[in-house]
Parts: sequence; C-alpha cells; structure tokens
Amino acid sequence: MKLLFEYNWQVRNEWFEWCSHVPNEVLIHKRIGGAGSILHTFFHIVDTELSWIRAIEGKPDIAPQFSDYNSLAQVVQFSKDSNEEIKDFILSWSTELERKTVMPSWMENESFTAGEILRHIIAHEIHHIGQLSIWSRELELKPVSSNFIGRGL
Amino acid sequence: MKLLFEYNWQVRNEWFEWCSHVPNEVLIHKRIGGAGSILHTFFHIVDTELSWIRAIEGKPDIAPQFSDYNSLAQVVQFSKDSNEEIKDFILSWSTELERKTVMPSWMENESFTAGEILRHIIAHEIHHIGQLSIWSRELELKPVSSNFIGRGL
Repeated sequence: MKLLFEYNWQVRNEWFEWCSHVPNEVLIHKRIGGAGSILHTFFHIVDTELSWIRAIEGKPDIAPQFSDYNSLAQVVQFSKDSNEEIKDFILSWSTELERKTVMPSWMENESFTAGEILRHIIAHEIHHIGQLSIWSRELELKPVSSNFIGRGL
Repeated sequence: MKLLFEYNWQVRNEWFEWCSHVPNEVLIHKRIGGAGSILHTFFHIVDTELSWIRAIEGKPDIAPQFSDYNSLAQVVQFSKDSNEEIKDFILSWSTELERKTVMPSWMENESFTAGEILRHIIAHEIHHIGQLSIWSRELELKPVSSNFIGRGL
C-alpha cells in the first residue's frame, strides 16, 4: 500500500508540473464531473487524503475551503504541507493498524477500519487523476502517464 | 492488494449493470481519451488485467481484438471468463511473489517485478473508471460510486 501512496504523490507532482504550463483560467475553468475544475480536483484530492489520515490519527478535521486556494501555487503548497504532515504516518504504516476503528468527525455514526480508509484514499486519487486525463485530452494536451510500471517504485 | 482487486471487480460489475441501461450506440460512440469508447475501455481493462496476470504466470499472451467483442454481452462474458481464469491466482497471492521477475512477451527486453505489475493492474483499472465517470457526467447520467469505503470489502 505504501508504494501506491508513493505512486500517487509522484503522479500528482507530475500533474502539478503539467499544470504549470497551462494558463490559470484553464485550471479554474468549470468542467463537467470531478470536483468541477482541474484546480479544484487537485485541492479535493489533497483535502480528502489529509482529512482521512487525520481522522485515523484521531486529529480534528481542518476542512479548508477551495475559495482560499484558487491558484496553482496555493494548491501545490497545500499538497506539500499536507505531504509533510502525513508522509511519516503512511510510510511507517504497519498491518497492526489495519483493523483500527475510525469514526470520521464529518459523518454521523459511521465507522470504518483504518485499512479500508487507506485503500479508499489510494483509489480516490487514482480515480480523479483518470478524470483529469479526459479533460487533458479534451484540451488536446498529452496527460501525465498513469503507468505504475517503469517508475522505479 | 487482494482487496483492491476485489474492489475493481465489484466496481466493474456495477458499471456493466450501468451499461445495460444505456443503448449500444452510446457504448460504442467514439469519445476523446480512454480507449476511445465506453465499451472499448472495458474491453481494454479486462484485456490488460488478463495479459499481465498471464505474463506473471508465464503463459503466452492471447491478444484478443476489440473488433471481436463489440457488444456489451461479449465484453461482460470476456470479463467473466477472464475473472474465472485469474481469480484464484490473485486471491492466493503471497508476498514471496513480490520480487519475481517478469518479462512480458509484448515488450522488448523490459522486465518488471510481479509486485510492480499487480499495482500497475490495480491503478490501471481505477484510472480508466475515473475516465468513464467523466463520460457518464457528460451524458448526464450518474456514474457508479467509486468509493472503496462502505462496500464491505
């Protein structure tokens, strides 16, 4: 599972590089599906990962608002800060945590295992990156490779 | 990793159910990105998974052609047959296989570890399902949920 997190972070950073060559109005342009725009989708990916990891760790949810992060530089910084906070937790993950019960503060009376949540975060980011690849093709731009193989992970 | 395969198979079957309510001309309609149409993308998901698992097992590649699978019923059957063939292998996966070297017959002088390939297959299907969710929204249809949590996996 750690390798799938590292894959997601690597792909995300390659997309940030891709975004740096695209005008901001294209990044915030309203689109059908995903979180509604390219930039908002990246914000949502980072926010979701951070919220769930904080929930596993028993920390309060921060609930940042996209309206405070409406430039690529701000979303990239949010991703860096989030990564700084959660990286050690993910990379020191041990299977003993798999069955830990987690009750996220933003849901009512719902509980999940920590293992279930980790897989949810992994699938969540890959799913959204798939959406971005369609928007990229619609913009006639080559998307970032989503291959897991060949990354040296 | 096994749970992420089971997640993919469950989501795939829910999409097949979704497809059963959509006319065939919509499923084969040429679209931007993915494998070019909804049906072709599902064919590609199954074909890719089967090819890689057969490569790990040292079996020859079958290389089926989409032109032979141009109805939903045929792609669903292909998925069922493929699942029948590979399920036991995936579910009996042990970490000892992680570092096994695999040289796929359709590449020249490239080798990967079996663990790398398994993660590639997982990410590959989730990525394409994300693409389908955009096409679904563009068709003004609700896509299948991609949540990992809440599936009882």
